[in-house]
Amino acid sequence: MPQVKQINHVAIVVDDMEQALSFWRDALGMEVAELRDVPAEKSQVAFLPLRDSDVELVRPASADSGIAKFLAKRGPGLHHVCLEVDDIEGLLAQLHAKNIRLINEQPRIAADGKRYAFIHPESAGGVLVELYQI
Amino acid sequence: MPQVKQINHVAIVVDDMEQALSFWRDALGMEVAELRDVPAEKSQVAFLPLRDSDVELVRPASADSGIAKFLAKRGPGLHHVCLEVDDIEGLLAQLHAKNIRLINEQPRIAADGKRYAFIHPESAGGVLVELYQI
Repeated sequence: MPQVKQINHVAIVVDDMEQALSFWRDALGMEVAELRDVPAEKSQVAFLPLRDSDVELVRPASADSGIAKFLAKRGPGLHHVCLEVDDIEGLLAQLHAKNIRLINEQPRIAADGKRYAFIHPESAGGVLVELYQI
Repeated sequence: MPQVKQINHVAIVVDDMEQALSFWRDALGMEVAELRDVPAEKSQVAFLPLRDSDVELVRPASADSGIAKFLAKRGPGLHHVCLEVDDIEGLLAQLHAKNIRLINEQPRIAADGKRYAFIHPESAGGVLVELYQI
């Protein structure tokens, strides 16, 4: 049976990266490991690693990105939770068999080789859930 | 300096616990360690532990609870992220000094002895952040 191992990260939509960093980095004292533009997703991302999980801050860099639409509709705040799994293909097949609506029926492959897929919030009680296999 | 150590849990508001469990437990295969009523918070809570972090499902048991108001306003979905810290008093003092708006200026003490406090979403880019010291 495929298993969910841990929370890999929690992603947060921000409208102003410097303002967000003034909270997460300067006030909470968390370290920013990486701050970079992601042109493929028309966004800017900051990674703040913790022991086993990251906090990710995502700022839309273009008004036509998915993240910009989320921001316009819901405002800044929690965006998705990412679960690390040990067998993403097996879990997607299991979810499919249980009629869970998937945004990605097959894993997508990130630039760093990680496989990931999103579950539709409609099947997850309004939560956007990402699955990740490292 | 007080430090944020890890994500302790991610809390999710649900309107129907059985429906939520059919996703998190039955479809994703996560284990439910505990399912109980929390009369003091007029809610029912399910804990689904992962390696270092939990997923918590919270269902309002009364229409006048804070969680019921959140559900009415925002719908079901991600509610808050809880960060485990090593010095909650020190971190609250640091946040206060940086003019971060706190819901709890002093830690509250849970039935099991854990100290916790919430940061106001207004100072955290729309995210409800809980701090936890175990």
